[in-house]
Amino acid sequence: MGEQKPRIVIVGAGFGGITLAKQFAREDVEVTIIDRHNFHLFQPLLYQVSTAILSADEIAYPIRAFFRDNENVKFFMAKAQGVDAERHVVLTDHGEVPYDYVILAAGATTNFFGMESVEKNSFGMKTLQEALHIRNHVLHMFERADKELDDPEERKRMLTFVVVGGGATGIEESGAISELIEVQRKEFHQLDFSQVSVHLLEAMDTVLPMVSPRLQKHTIEVLKKKGVHVHLHAQVADYDGKEITFKDGTKLPTRTVIWAAGIKAVPFVANCGGKTARGGRIVVDEQLRVEGVKDVFAIGDCAYFQHGTERPLPTVAPVANQQAKTAFHNIMKLIKGESDLEAFHYKDLGAMATIGRGEAVVNKTSINPEMTGFLAWCAWMFVHLLRLAGTHTNVTVALKWCWNLFSGARLGRIITNIKV
Amino acid sequence: MGEQKPRIVIVGAGFGGITLAKQFAREDVEVTIIDRHNFHLFQPLLYQVSTAILSADEIAYPIRAFFRDNENVKFFMAKAQGVDAERHVVLTDHGEVPYDYVILAAGATTNFFGMESVEKNSFGMKTLQEALHIRNHVLHMFERADKELDDPEERKRMLTFVVVGGGATGIEESGAISELIEVQRKEFHQLDFSQVSVHLLEAMDTVLPMVSPRLQKHTIEVLKKKGVHVHLHAQVADYDGKEITFKDGTKLPTRTVIWAAGIKAVPFVANCGGKTARGGRIVVDEQLRVEGVKDVFAIGDCAYFQHGTERPLPTVAPVANQQAKTAFHNIMKLIKGESDLEAFHYKDLGAMATIGRGEAVVNKTSINPEMTGFLAWCAWMFVHLLRLAGTHTNVTVALKWCWNLFSGARLGRIITNIKV
Repeated sequence: MGEQKPRIVIVGAGFGGITLAKQFAREDVEVTIIDRHNFHLFQPLLYQVSTAILSADEIAYPIRAFFRDNENVKFFMAKAQGVDAERHVVLTDHGEVPYDYVILAAGATTNFFGMESVEKNSFGMKTLQEALHIRNHVLHMFERADKELDDPEERKRMLTFVVVGGGATGIEESGAISELIEVQRKEFHQLDFSQVSVHLLEAMDTVLPMVSPRLQKHTIEVLKKKGVHVHLHAQVADYDGKEITFKDGTKLPTRTVIWAAGIKAVPFVANCGGKTARGGRIVVDEQLRVEGVKDVFAIGDCAYFQHGTERPLPTVAPVANQQAKTAFHNIMKLIKGESDLEAFHYKDLGAMATIGRGEAVVNKTSINPEMTGFLAWCAWMFVHLLRLAGTHTNVTVALKWCWNLFSGARLGRIITNIKV
Repeated sequence: MGEQKPRIVIVGAGFGGITLAKQFAREDVEVTIIDRHNFHLFQPLLYQVSTAILSADEIAYPIRAFFRDNENVKFFMAKAQGVDAERHVVLTDHGEVPYDYVILAAGATTNFFGMESVEKNSFGMKTLQEALHIRNHVLHMFERADKELDDPEERKRMLTFVVVGGGATGIEESGAISELIEVQRKEFHQLDFSQVSVHLLEAMDTVLPMVSPRLQKHTIEVLKKKGVHVHLHAQVADYDGKEITFKDGTKLPTRTVIWAAGIKAVPFVANCGGKTARGGRIVVDEQLRVEGVKDVFAIGDCAYFQHGTERPLPTVAPVANQQAKTAFHNIMKLIKGESDLEAFHYKDLGAMATIGRGEAVVNKTSINPEMTGFLAWCAWMFVHLLRLAGTHTNVTVALKWCWNLFSGARLGRIITNIKV
């Protein structure tokens, strides 16, 4: 009987969780990854699944496949429910998982800011299932509108697509829907496309807060050219499934609201012993330890880090990946009995968003301060292909993107939620 | 106002329906395709979706995409419910569709032969949704078994996979599952794989009735080499979700039964005015007209054709495709006022089934009377790639097949039916 190896438990197999697990896999520790899904999801490309550019399994990778050669890495498929720091166990719907060190990397979910009607009737865009729901629903709206001959108002509602939130997701989603409409136009010979419209709603006075005013303006211009109606200062108050009501009382009839206007940490982190802050994120110290709870760390979208930063760090993959490295180093130090833990410092790698085929904006890269247009789109494509896991999937994704660029093809336009 | 063009209505967008519509699209007629799905499904490859080789949208094509350049072809997404031959309308759940000539090409569904417990607890394999259910379920069984530490009997039940039916689908499915297990073996470091087993049940005394005894024997040998337990003379009487009971009283505990043991025509054809025969198929005359009903034709799996044949024609794509051509010619003759309709004659093109990576059996081709092994597999691959619609999908499918051949990779192993 050898000595028990340190047990590292990672909750969540997103960017942060997988990066962490890959590092611990090389050490003399036992790693358990807990996730309710058996796959790692490449969330930045969810919008491409929701608009029929990519297949679901092109952006989802079996978690176990990453750790095929690592006997010391286990996967435990379960929904985490909390951390009992006294007893050093993670509580899940499939029993308890004991740990010596646990890292919360559980990510975020959609924030409807307490608006129940909106939550009930609109689509979130955080999970693969939600992206497939959007795809099924949008395609179905065209089919239903094509048969709706008696009620022109209902037909118009079906053909009005609304995306809420002017962040990267909202920009990408509204741009991709406007391009999808161009594909549909070729195939719905009888439908009156003057009734089809895409609206992007943003509560603030501009889109993409993380890029420069020049890029923001460019983004809005490109969206408008694509036929997207961009509404700034548009604050949603209610949505009953048929009609949006804005704070100022005006209305917008639609059967489709895609909500990309905010996220919050997954509720599970509130049961982990620490304090939570804005957006339900769990407060961590400079070394990424959950404040006041021993041996519990938190990284990424579920962690609230505000040390030497003006505001909490953005909820993007680079933050999670960089924090994973710091958390790894700090836990290894604790295992070795060292006490000089590193403080985390975020290195901003810039921001990018694609507005459609051959169009993107890129801010603050190491090569160039700003890029727009086709070059920016190439940069966007290159970065995302590099980051996509799974060699062979890269090939099919690259092929589909080239194909889509030249032909606008959307072969994924199948509706799969019909009762069978 | 021009004269009303002849209205052709095609119920079902399977192989027969699409072939028919493509021919009518070139004529001076108005075509309406009715289908409850918005996609044409390449059913022979369903087993590859159910075993995580291909993505769902690689075998499903938007119906409208076939007819992008044909303004005279409409698609009407609805579930057909019957034909009112007096009033010349097809009844659907979205209203009536008037016709001058209607062709029933609605296909088949799973036949559980009246065994309700089996129907309730086992998986059919006729729709895309069912294939995804199988994929989700099989993968989930591995995850659940990996966590099931207390009850070894339950764990074994979870790891026992049963396919019923020794036709092409059953052979392909059981072979593909046995290969999937080899992939899982590399990634479930703790699971005892001696508990994992695949069973193929066949009620008759051999498999693949359409090929020669030599090929049947070869198929069984290859399956056994792959670790599939082949049970002949095995007649299922009951399945409660935990245990199969055979006619002879013996039992087989399992959580997974995939039913590929029989099909019947979709029930809708019983409401079309004609007579139905064995398997619920609607009886057609030699010219493919539904017997006793004017202006209604039927082709493919839902049609019962027995004229100069020993038994009704097999329910395979080549029959549907050939019948589509005859039905088209005969309807065009009627439109032109000619009365010398063609009788249908089936040209048997042979049969093929793949038993796994690099292994297949091919019967009666024009080149060779019989083939087995790698050459047969290449022939199988070539024929199926040729028949797959959509140029670009062919490329990704071909890539995945090559990749799978050399590496055994199954990147589609994601579980998507988890509540979100």
